[in-house]
Amino acid sequence: MSVGWVSFTTDYGTADGFVAACKGVLAALAPEVGVIDVTHQVPPQDVRRGAAVLAQTVPWLPPAVHLAVVDPGVGTSRRGIAILAEGGVLVGPDNGLLVPAAEALGGIRAAYELADPAYHLPEVSATFHGRDVFAPVTAHLCLGLDPARLGPPAEELVRLPAPTVHAGPGLLRAEVLTVDVFGNLQLAASTEELAAAGFAERVEVVAGAVHPARVGRTFADVPAGELVVMADSDGLSAVAVNRGDAARLLGVAPGDELTIRAVPGTTRPA
Amino acid sequence: MSVGWVSFTTDYGTADGFVAACKGVLAALAPEVGVIDVTHQVPPQDVRRGAAVLAQTVPWLPPAVHLAVVDPGVGTSRRGIAILAEGGVLVGPDNGLLVPAAEALGGIRAAYELADPAYHLPEVSATFHGRDVFAPVTAHLCLGLDPARLGPPAEELVRLPAPTVHAGPGLLRAEVLTVDVFGNLQLAASTEELAAAGFAERVEVVAGAVHPARVGRTFADVPAGELVVMADSDGLSAVAVNRGDAARLLGVAPGDELTIRAVPGTTRPA
Amino acid sequence: MSVGWVSFTTDYGTADGFVAACKGVLAALAPEVGVIDVTHQVPPQDVRRGAAVLAQTVPWLPPAVHLAVVDPGVGTSRRGIAILAEGGVLVGPDNGLLVPAAEALGGIRAAYELADPAYHLPEVSATFHGRDVFAPVTAHLCLGLDPARLGPPAEELVRLPAPTVHAGPGLLRAEVLTVDVFGNLQLAASTEELAAAGFAERVEVVAGAVHPARVGRTFADVPAGELVVMADSDGLSAVAVNRGDAARLLGVAPGDELTIRAVPGTTRPA
Repeated sequence: MSVGWVSFTTDYGTADGFVAACKGVLAALAPEVGVIDVTHQVPPQDVRRGAAVLAQTVPWLPPAVHLAVVDPGVGTSRRGIAILAEGGVLVGPDNGLLVPAAEALGGIRAAYELADPAYHLPEVSATFHGRDVFAPVTAHLCLGLDPARLGPPAEELVRLPAPTVHAGPGLLRAEVLTVDVFGNLQLAASTEELAAAGFAERVEVVAGAVHPARVGRTFADVPAGELVVMADSDGLSAVAVNRGDAARLLGVAPGDELTIRAVPGTTRPA
Repeated sequence: MSVGWVSFTTDYGTADGFVAACKGVLAALAPEVGVIDVTHQVPPQDVRRGAAVLAQTVPWLPPAVHLAVVDPGVGTSRRGIAILAEGGVLVGPDNGLLVPAAEALGGIRAAYELADPAYHLPEVSATFHGRDVFAPVTAHLCLGLDPARLGPPAEELVRLPAPTVHAGPGLLRAEVLTVDVFGNLQLAASTEELAAAGFAERVEVVAGAVHPARVGRTFADVPAGELVVMADSDGLSAVAVNRGDAARLLGVAPGDELTIRAVPGTTRPA
Repeated sequence: MSVGWVSFTTDYGTADGFVAACKGVLAALAPEVGVIDVTHQVPPQDVRRGAAVLAQTVPWLPPAVHLAVVDPGVGTSRRGIAILAEGGVLVGPDNGLLVPAAEALGGIRAAYELADPAYHLPEVSATFHGRDVFAPVTAHLCLGLDPARLGPPAEELVRLPAPTVHAGPGLLRAEVLTVDVFGNLQLAASTEELAAAGFAERVEVVAGAVHPARVGRTFADVPAGELVVMADSDGLSAVAVNRGDAARLLGVAPGDELTIRAVPGTTRPA
């Protein structure tokens, strides 16, 4: 069984030739495979951001080997792994980067350490495992290699700390997971947690200062320049400004905590 | 009749997984199609800039379905449309984004509203129609779907206001359409309108201050650091600085108006 | 003999449609060819940086026609060329951009001037030879055209000045070739020149101020925030900061000269 698609996520940027070198290794070994770039603009070594973008994107991709490299520990004893999930295979460092995406693909069925050098480049550098280890392993998997042949089962995968979420009647407190190019905030809270808060239309968003906002279905449910709290297109809670930039308005960044609370006297029963 | 190429233009940026999610939807439905990214760096919600880049690029692309999403009105009642032009099909929001490209492809033959949910994803979010509506419609068109099956004819398409151009003997006044990465200014005036001004070699460019410039054929027709007025590679008038940045020198941006005028006593007959 | 891959390197950026226009010309003539983008973020008109990125990347790509355009002299009498190297063909302007990559591909076997308009677009603009000359020539080469048919042999190719390197016992002085997205410095000195300096573990890096550093194998051989001198994944000497940004710490940029020297009394015999 061979796989026709690779998705590719890194913090390499696109100003250097790193992404191309990995694609060259892939193309030489598995020339028929199509590559879909998820992003190469993960902030350098920001494993958490890389994990969030990857997990949000994989549900929309065709069956693929998902190659992801945000790897501050390259050259140390951190393991390289391949995770077999219900809906795809993930390849990269064992630092938490791949686990949320594996869960978004239906959960982890097995994981293997990338121990057998037969599936790496003949010479492996100390600093560029994307090219020398992860890309050739990805190519071999696309060609139909059984992941169990890559190395021994990888026990106890490294996991990122779960983001904080506190949801209750009239209150939702959650970490900002990501900020997109429009300045929309995606929170760690699910839309179910948002619904459970039982907000009426008018709420307050607290990020240092207190800002009035409305619960809506889309940007245009509030006037231009005003805050809207809504379900986003990934099934998570989001805070946005219609035709504006919520991150800039609120002065928040990924990892910050945000509180959404009822305006006193307006809470509906959940 | 199926189409082998999709061009893809958005304001999604490349730091998030939005572009990849759309490509994933495309790849799942129409895996044989090749995607050419026009740009994903349209400034957020800048429909006018998106329209200009798309219209300049489509004449150089092979027959394709052109998928373009700069969509500040997503989730409102703005329509999604497919435009059938002489030289290709365009898919995106009905906000003026697609019309200049359709004209660059020989003119609009028909347009249809994207009303039939059979060609959308089963669940359509309120905020991400690129993934949920426009990408699957694009895939179906690539596979040979008759555009008339997408929905009823779309009457009275939204159009952007035409950029201002005033051309006469010894004078050309025109809006700056785009500024490229080198700082070259592309004006809304055609090369015919530039020719009609009948300029001699030396002219003045007025953008607040008055700057001396020359009419030339290419950057190198003036010394390094000096202004040249010329025809650009899209058949429009341009203002550039040899080995420099005209936008920075003149302090102008897209949408600003610029005047090019004869130095008194130097106008040739048109 | 036809070639299945094109690599593509420019200073066009990705905000305009320039890259897409070139890909459109390629796709129309040679639709079966796969394109690997090396980078389009070469700083505008920085031939030296373009040459360095291209030369580092080509060894990792499959057999390809390497299309590269960083071309401040477009529209002047500078020649367009195709270089036939041991391991591939390179197409672009004759300004030094292609030569280091040709050497990385085993050396120059022949070079031809792009003189025959039969292999260009019917109309060639004065300012966009990437689209009008280099892309169609690349497509024809992919389809199997003998490079000798492109035009007469190109004698005396333009070459960039060699970067300065001074290596001796206990001392390595070399130009910074590139700075990557992580702030790692790649020096013009080879790993052999680094070995020839015979450094002990502790060294000093001089860039204006004097900074303590260690010679290591990878980032993690020094504590977070400290400087490491090492061989990089391209076989060149590099200076990095573990989980940090060496370019920012040292205040250096490509083209600057850096000195690495032994701490007195610590030099080993070479």
